[in-house]
Amino acid sequence: MQILQQSLRTTAATLTLLAAVCAQAADLAQFAAPGAPTPEEVRAVAPALEHYTRNALMGDLWQRPQLSKRDRSIVTLAALIACNQQAEMAYHLDLALNNGVKPGEISELITHLAFYSGWGNAMAAVAIASDVFERHGVKAEQLPQAEVEPLPLDEEAEARRETLVRENFGETAPVVVQFTTDTLFHDLWLRPGLAPRDRSLVTVSALIASGQVAQIPFHLNKAMDSGLTQTQASEVLTHLAFYAGWPNVFSALPVAKDVFAKRVAD
Amino acid sequence: MQILQQSLRTTAATLTLLAAVCAQAADLAQFAAPGAPTPEEVRAVAPALEHYTRNALMGDLWQRPQLSKRDRSIVTLAALIACNQQAEMAYHLDLALNNGVKPGEISELITHLAFYSGWGNAMAAVAIASDVFERHGVKAEQLPQAEVEPLPLDEEAEARRETLVRENFGETAPVVVQFTTDTLFHDLWLRPGLAPRDRSLVTVSALIASGQVAQIPFHLNKAMDSGLTQTQASEVLTHLAFYAGWPNVFSALPVAKDVFAKRVAD
Amino acid sequence: MQILQQSLRTTAATLTLLAAVCAQAADLAQFAAPGAPTPEEVRAVAPALEHYTRNALMGDLWQRPQLSKRDRSIVTLAALIACNQQAEMAYHLDLALNNGVKPGEISELITHLAFYSGWGNAMAAVAIASDVFERHGVKAEQLPQAEVEPLPLDEEAEARRETLVRENFGETAPVVVQFTTDTLFHDLWLRPGLAPRDRSLVTVSALIASGQVAQIPFHLNKAMDSGLTQTQASEVLTHLAFYAGWPNVFSALPVAKDVFAKRVAD
Repeated sequence: MQILQQSLRTTAATLTLLAAVCAQAADLAQFAAPGAPTPEEVRAVAPALEHYTRNALMGDLWQRPQLSKRDRSIVTLAALIACNQQAEMAYHLDLALNNGVKPGEISELITHLAFYSGWGNAMAAVAIASDVFERHGVKAEQLPQAEVEPLPLDEEAEARRETLVRENFGETAPVVVQFTTDTLFHDLWLRPGLAPRDRSLVTVSALIASGQVAQIPFHLNKAMDSGLTQTQASEVLTHLAFYAGWPNVFSALPVAKDVFAKRVAD
Repeated sequence: MQILQQSLRTTAATLTLLAAVCAQAADLAQFAAPGAPTPEEVRAVAPALEHYTRNALMGDLWQRPQLSKRDRSIVTLAALIACNQQAEMAYHLDLALNNGVKPGEISELITHLAFYSGWGNAMAAVAIASDVFERHGVKAEQLPQAEVEPLPLDEEAEARRETLVRENFGETAPVVVQFTTDTLFHDLWLRPGLAPRDRSLVTVSALIASGQVAQIPFHLNKAMDSGLTQTQASEVLTHLAFYAGWPNVFSALPVAKDVFAKRVAD
Repeated sequence: MQILQQSLRTTAATLTLLAAVCAQAADLAQFAAPGAPTPEEVRAVAPALEHYTRNALMGDLWQRPQLSKRDRSIVTLAALIACNQQAEMAYHLDLALNNGVKPGEISELITHLAFYSGWGNAMAAVAIASDVFERHGVKAEQLPQAEVEPLPLDEEAEARRETLVRENFGETAPVVVQFTTDTLFHDLWLRPGLAPRDRSLVTVSALIASGQVAQIPFHLNKAMDSGLTQTQASEVLTHLAFYAGWPNVFSALPVAKDVFAKRVAD
């Protein structure tokens, strides 16, 4: 009888332990993004897609020296987050860390995209990055704090931008104009955790990936003013053809062509 | 021997019970949306984003009196559903109910967006709202039925709209034109569970959030004809800058400016 | 004592087995798409939406003879994948197989959309299709292999396309132009597993569903050159009004009208 009680207690303990395991599993699953399929799974559905991934994408595109793997990872993450494509997000966060993108840069990239692709997309990325950071043992002190010493403001360029926007939309949406100045250009853009050139790279990639053609001229020029070369910009388009789809890139091409031409003419 | 059998039976029962628990856990996880990250999780990935969320978003934007919290919840839900941003959807459905949006209004909002942002987006929202409604103890009798007494039709305005659309596209896509009249303007838009002004608020928010600039003039005018003031419309743009991202709002600004100007001139 | 040990071993074995079950459940949940709500769930949130789904959508739209159910399934899948709308994806993959779309055609459709709507969307679709194919017992030999005998190239049409694109964008993004020729038009488009007319149907549907108006003329003409009739093209617009939302279709209507008019004039 004592043995039976012992056995029942053991079983009860097992029950409690396993319920906890199950709860945690369900919890993890709830917060986890739907995962990227393995190469075997891709092959089991679309052998040609697995072939293109291995050859055109990984074997060719990612090896092209016109853009570093680090920059390609930044462009890829910006596109995935801006389009809320969660399936490959954990995979590309891992790859970005391995390609030399710093945790603090990923932190700033996500924060930047809250403003440039909507709060909901940034929060979805946080939920996934949270797991990836934990897995990589990222510590709080590796991340830029909320309050930081801002980079110096380019007063002249900012005055031009502010005047243009205020003259255009100051009456239509004065508070949008105010937030744009105070929160974006006098605050977010001056955070040193992501270099201005990289912040522009994120912005331009997000604009192309989400089909937002109208703002490309301003931000592509800003990116090139901050050091992005035309060869790199062109390669960003090439990279995004695969990650944002051919149509988005073909819609961006006439705009990029125009920006490149005007910079030569100046 | 008997004790062993007893023990085995107990273990077998545990097995069965736990298998059921696990199955249910997996099932719940499968149907649940990936959840919104907690403030702690946001801070662990992006301290600056948590800071902006607490200050610029919750402390400033949501407190601005130019648009009620109830209206802000409607605008936010419309943007999240139109962009299929599921991470924060349960959170914002909760918040909407707390801000005074009625369950029946959420029900109509989701149905409306099936037509204005695609069936798949509405169905994804249903899966999440289903849990939220259950948690809030929403009863069937609180929701508008499928068949309802329609609001009166503004015959004159509808005749103008119908003529314009038929003359433009009656030959290109006669059945689209027919469904637009029968199912949308003579049925969906006349459902009383969501006031015409709120239905327009949902439509305009969805158009801005998904970058559909071309239909903004018609629907922004319709919204303002139904009682949305210019101050409120401008504040919708401000609110959506955060939830749909700055680029979508900057693409909508010239169109809104034009609508505002023409209404003053009239 | 021996019995106790036996009992503990049994419990330990149970623990191991259940841990495996739980791990698999979590794993499945992680890779599964959030599921489509059942009719009961839809009714519990939005009785009107369930009503429209049963009547306007399933009872009317899907029964219209102007486009076969097989073609409607192709159009629907293209829209869902291009917009990354995962909630109803498993449901529509099932329906497509039941409507006569072959597993090999689905395989090619997903691969095609990697290029026309971004790699991340195709990979999300693979993760879902993988389960559906397994459930339907789809075998590897039913799928087109990675390397296949290509269809003959229409040299003249391809020369015209290539010259136009190279003259426009050969300097802006030479590598995009090169990949477009080599990987898309000399390779992907020539894969025989999806008939050229169906490949165009997928492309046009994806363009409309993602609001990519600029490339519709080229691809709608190509679709009609490959056998899509104007009646079918018009019905594709009708079908997509429901699945991609009214605004995307109304943005495509002037473009389609223009394409139809020019083909009559020629």
